[in-house]
Amino acid sequence: MHDDDSMGVDLAGRSYEISIVSHQLAHCAKVFEHWWFTRDGMSSSFCSKRPPSGSVWVEVKRNVGRPFALIVTDSNVAPTHAAEVQQSLVSDGWRCEMEILPAGETSKSLEMLTRVYDRLIDLNADRRTIIIAVGGGVVGDAAGFVAATFMRGLPFIQVPTTLLAAVDSSVGGKTGVNHPRAKNMIGAFYQPIGVLIDTATLETLPDREYRAGLAEVVKYGVILDAEFLSYLEHNADQINGRDPRVLRHIIARSCRLKADVVEKDEFETAGLRAALNYGHTFGHAFEALAGYGELLHGEAVAIGMIYASRLAERRGLIDAALTRRQIDLLQKLKLPTALPDSIQLSADDIIGRMRLDKKSVSGSLRFILPIEAGTVKTFADIPESDVRAVLES
Amino acid sequence: MHDDDSMGVDLAGRSYEISIVSHQLAHCAKVFEHWWFTRDGMSSSFCSKRPPSGSVWVEVKRNVGRPFALIVTDSNVAPTHAAEVQQSLVSDGWRCEMEILPAGETSKSLEMLTRVYDRLIDLNADRRTIIIAVGGGVVGDAAGFVAATFMRGLPFIQVPTTLLAAVDSSVGGKTGVNHPRAKNMIGAFYQPIGVLIDTATLETLPDREYRAGLAEVVKYGVILDAEFLSYLEHNADQINGRDPRVLRHIIARSCRLKADVVEKDEFETAGLRAALNYGHTFGHAFEALAGYGELLHGEAVAIGMIYASRLAERRGLIDAALTRRQIDLLQKLKLPTALPDSIQLSADDIIGRMRLDKKSVSGSLRFILPIEAGTVKTFADIPESDVRAVLES
Repeated sequence: MHDDDSMGVDLAGRSYEISIVSHQLAHCAKVFEHWWFTRDGMSSSFCSKRPPSGSVWVEVKRNVGRPFALIVTDSNVAPTHAAEVQQSLVSDGWRCEMEILPAGETSKSLEMLTRVYDRLIDLNADRRTIIIAVGGGVVGDAAGFVAATFMRGLPFIQVPTTLLAAVDSSVGGKTGVNHPRAKNMIGAFYQPIGVLIDTATLETLPDREYRAGLAEVVKYGVILDAEFLSYLEHNADQINGRDPRVLRHIIARSCRLKADVVEKDEFETAGLRAALNYGHTFGHAFEALAGYGELLHGEAVAIGMIYASRLAERRGLIDAALTRRQIDLLQKLKLPTALPDSIQLSADDIIGRMRLDKKSVSGSLRFILPIEAGTVKTFADIPESDVRAVLES
Repeated sequence: MHDDDSMGVDLAGRSYEISIVSHQLAHCAKVFEHWWFTRDGMSSSFCSKRPPSGSVWVEVKRNVGRPFALIVTDSNVAPTHAAEVQQSLVSDGWRCEMEILPAGETSKSLEMLTRVYDRLIDLNADRRTIIIAVGGGVVGDAAGFVAATFMRGLPFIQVPTTLLAAVDSSVGGKTGVNHPRAKNMIGAFYQPIGVLIDTATLETLPDREYRAGLAEVVKYGVILDAEFLSYLEHNADQINGRDPRVLRHIIARSCRLKADVVEKDEFETAGLRAALNYGHTFGHAFEALAGYGELLHGEAVAIGMIYASRLAERRGLIDAALTRRQIDLLQKLKLPTALPDSIQLSADDIIGRMRLDKKSVSGSLRFILPIEAGTVKTFADIPESDVRAVLES
């Protein structure tokens, strides 16, 4: 493949490649076959070890016959990117079916899982059947959970088609669905055998959705990489223009930064992964209280980062210049940096909601706060009065 | 604890203890607290590493407050063993609720999972909430899957109350539920933080269910340990009398033998775990064709072992004496060694069913066959004519 910014995510025994390309979806079959055969052709990322020698490839190829995949996608992406993936696979001799979920968050449900399980049974899926998610975060999370749980694990490939999915959910192995009363409550850690990110899928994204994804990109710079933060500041025009070369770079750098964290804290037990939640404690509360869909996740995170940065100022951790840099960059990328006038939330409601956060422990207020560009720390037990002052300022 | 035949299952970073005791359920709280606190108080077996130093215990205790557990059990066990566990925990200061599933295989369903998820949400469960399965294989498999998937993993404790669950599902980390059209189709590999087996729970087991569990014990001797096979032959009377000392030994030895295999092949990818399926290829077909419930799983496996052993004879792998030993031992333990007259199955139906087995690859006939007492091998592509001859003899 040309123009390839591939990288590896190294999780002992469950490592995989993220291939970042432009206008190559029509040739995806070869990439997938490489991932599949070098994975022993067996389930799965979650379990399998790399084959001990080249002979396994040959043997598996002989045993397995042609690959069989179920593409899981949504009604927006099915006719375009998912169809292109399917065509490439069928042309290359794969058996390939497609399951199309309704577009939107409602597809992250137990009911929708049941539908995909039923389809797999109808298709006589076995442990070598490959699940390919083509879509945004909803499709990736739900399809990933199906892959994690059907026959205790099928090989799983992700083709994220939104910027948010590309820079966030393609690294980290979090899969799952919502409970009617709580988001992301049912899930599993499950690693794919490979991730293919094609910037062509981002060219057709609605403007607002594209920008929302950029909020997470900015976040990586602020929390982990001052040099990358500068790169974003200097390349805002090309980013706004969706320049493929710049896109590949910011996706690769974002994935690499997240992967570095995930490799050290795969199951979110060491506390390191918490850094990735910069802007999210405020952001989740804004999202939930505004009513899901009013603010896109990335928009809520953008606003949340500015509140968190102000909280860091108030606690004497940084001076106002670092907050100013974030505001300027987010504004260049046409992202909100304060709640819009149409959304009026009380400090009490926001603080109450933050105490309910899944990552909160016994209702305490924990925040990820910057201490300099490219570095954050977790602060437990921030006084409520400081949080309130920032919210009301 | 007295009379303790504890053992460890060593899965890097996910190791846990199996404690095998007699009449100690009333004191289970202390054991569970040890497992919980030494586990960092965090989710979970699946993820967490042992704490680096003693200080973690103290810190976690302070943070967490009293432990909170949901016991998942069934209507048979709820008033007896589950109530005893609950009482011990409540007396020790735990918050402890109970969710009672209907007894029987129908509780291994997506609907029942939804019910337990709902209960956890109602109870405001968080990532430290402990799921305790008190019951047989159905309860353990369903509760384990809930633990594996709620908030991407809660700490999980198993208290198996049947012999089959004690010697089979308490080691290996297989959890899951049935799809309406296929058993065990939806699941995950997930390790508990500890397993407590109390032989007192086996004293009240119905005779037929107790014996069915013994079939798996015999299996371990045949496939992995000739000395253990002799032990069973010499202690059949005490086994029939459910002598606690002998029970603890056969459970400990069975768990150890299974653990040795699982430690080498946790995710069933290396082929080693296949050995545990001795008797199961025939057995599953008998079970399914007879109609689930006609033959208990262990009864089907007992009969299946004899067919597999005869197939090994026919292939020239063993002589008739080894089959004879298995028949004699199973008969001493009052287990069936041939299909009862009430179940008439055609060789065609049995072979057709075996080709559908989840572990079958592309419909080939694979069998685990003994080559001497204590040793088995996997044989792929056994000629159908040999299988047919054995079935029709």
